[in-house]
Amino acid sequence: MAVYTDVSDEDIRAFVAEYDIGAVASFKGIAEGVENSNFLLLTDRAPFIVTLYEKRVHREDLPFFLGLMDHLAARGVPCPTPIHGRDGEALRELCGRPAAIISFLTGVWPRRIQPDHCAALGAALAEMHRAGADFPIRRANALSVSGWRPLLDACRDRADTVRAGLAETLETELAALEACWPDDLPVGVIHADLFPDNVFFEGFELTGLIDFYFACNDFFAYDLAVCLNAWCFERRGEFNVTKARRLLSSYRAHRALSPVEIAALPLLARGAALRFLLTRLYDWLNQVEGALVRPKDPLEYLHKLRFHQGVDGPAAYGLA
Amino acid sequence: MAVYTDVSDEDIRAFVAEYDIGAVASFKGIAEGVENSNFLLLTDRAPFIVTLYEKRVHREDLPFFLGLMDHLAARGVPCPTPIHGRDGEALRELCGRPAAIISFLTGVWPRRIQPDHCAALGAALAEMHRAGADFPIRRANALSVSGWRPLLDACRDRADTVRAGLAETLETELAALEACWPDDLPVGVIHADLFPDNVFFEGFELTGLIDFYFACNDFFAYDLAVCLNAWCFERRGEFNVTKARRLLSSYRAHRALSPVEIAALPLLARGAALRFLLTRLYDWLNQVEGALVRPKDPLEYLHKLRFHQGVDGPAAYGLA
Repeated sequence: MAVYTDVSDEDIRAFVAEYDIGAVASFKGIAEGVENSNFLLLTDRAPFIVTLYEKRVHREDLPFFLGLMDHLAARGVPCPTPIHGRDGEALRELCGRPAAIISFLTGVWPRRIQPDHCAALGAALAEMHRAGADFPIRRANALSVSGWRPLLDACRDRADTVRAGLAETLETELAALEACWPDDLPVGVIHADLFPDNVFFEGFELTGLIDFYFACNDFFAYDLAVCLNAWCFERRGEFNVTKARRLLSSYRAHRALSPVEIAALPLLARGAALRFLLTRLYDWLNQVEGALVRPKDPLEYLHKLRFHQGVDGPAAYGLA
Repeated sequence: MAVYTDVSDEDIRAFVAEYDIGAVASFKGIAEGVENSNFLLLTDRAPFIVTLYEKRVHREDLPFFLGLMDHLAARGVPCPTPIHGRDGEALRELCGRPAAIISFLTGVWPRRIQPDHCAALGAALAEMHRAGADFPIRRANALSVSGWRPLLDACRDRADTVRAGLAETLETELAALEACWPDDLPVGVIHADLFPDNVFFEGFELTGLIDFYFACNDFFAYDLAVCLNAWCFERRGEFNVTKARRLLSSYRAHRALSPVEIAALPLLARGAALRFLLTRLYDWLNQVEGALVRPKDPLEYLHKLRFHQGVDGPAAYGLA
């Protein structure tokens, strides 16, 4: 739940006047998202989302994020589109923060994942990967393998307060991943944070991919590894191979996976698990008093990491 | 900011199917309100608000609240109306909690109060008081004078941790109010919590009064006393007599204030200040770790209480 900035009625009216989208009829903070402040704006014409980029998003990355949404939407990917103002600009300031109005997507994110959701996700992810191929701006993945050691360094001293032995587990795993992280897999624009709350559905029809604020250039298959972690484990921790199979087979029906990508999946899945384990651990150990966001349980991702450490090949994910 | 209950897509679809309001197009938690969980629902026809009543609202009070909104809206008061389902019921269950769909009001609550807002507020409050005259259900004000001593008892031991001498100040004031609280003022249905975030405007046109979940039967003039506290002080603490004058004179243009009501205003304003001082102090001293709502500063209301203690008559509020 996140609204970090209070926007006055005068502020939003002046802001909206820069666009040709009608007059403000309603403006309410949305209790979703963690990094930014999000508001639902209704004008007398249509609903929109207003996003204020808070300090965790770097201002210099915004042309990548907003340009990417424009690029993908123009190619049919169901994602929010930045609305351009009368001056042609999509990015301006509101209450001293970079801010944009983006198009509103219908649909609801799924709380109880079904295999059919995973199939729709796989297809949309593959189409997104293909649609991003000719996007001209580059952005490195700050949270790939080279970004994990600084996180571990910041957490190591207190990691064992969360779980005995956690620091050593993380150190061993990180060393292993650093030693064998691939560098020859197909790369392109990936979402890098495609959790269920970033995907909207109407029934099993996927209506939107949102929150591109971790998007970057990295291995396509790493995006699948993030999704295997985020979509294919049950609440009690069991890995649901049916969901994984549907995710991967549907992806492959829209973009071929090469043998090296398939072979790398268990390693990438370990890496994706470690990435979220480390960022959640960092947030857990650095809780801000009075924060309005509850930190997520890092140990959920320790469990997922252990699962991937134990698989003996990509067949564990339902691949033939 | 408040969404205490996560509602699944299946849950909301099944809930909305009980009504003739179209199909769910979007459903998002709203970062407003403190007592309940509120969601903005867009169907393919219109926007609505879905409210889940959390534990601070007593289930037995809901017929009063929902019935009152129906009653007032039917008499032209700009307030949300509960939507009745196909079975005629407005109150049902969602995720194990009492829940209702209420109509959506346009407008934005004002962050910077102007005298014109206060004038519009006065007129709407008077009209609301008149429209409630023939509402048949009764609800006592649990947070009037008889409710303050239990709050003070719960806070007394730790009050001085917030401000030295606060316990004694509260004790002295409460004893004085208990001794001379009136019992002969005109009574009727009051809102009892009409803070700026419960009043929507488009420009200076008042478009909605919301959040009737403290409404009760009590002195009409006490509602004005709540508004004097909530609308007529500047951020730095100065009392703005122009705003008070506009509030009161506009109210009187729509409902006459009797001489006893006018004479009682300073006392009622002290009582209203003490009520919010005590409830804020209680919430301040009983913060729940991990809560998603920041407690409001109780000392803001100590300052307001002292102002009202110091006035020498209703003329201080701009009354001729």
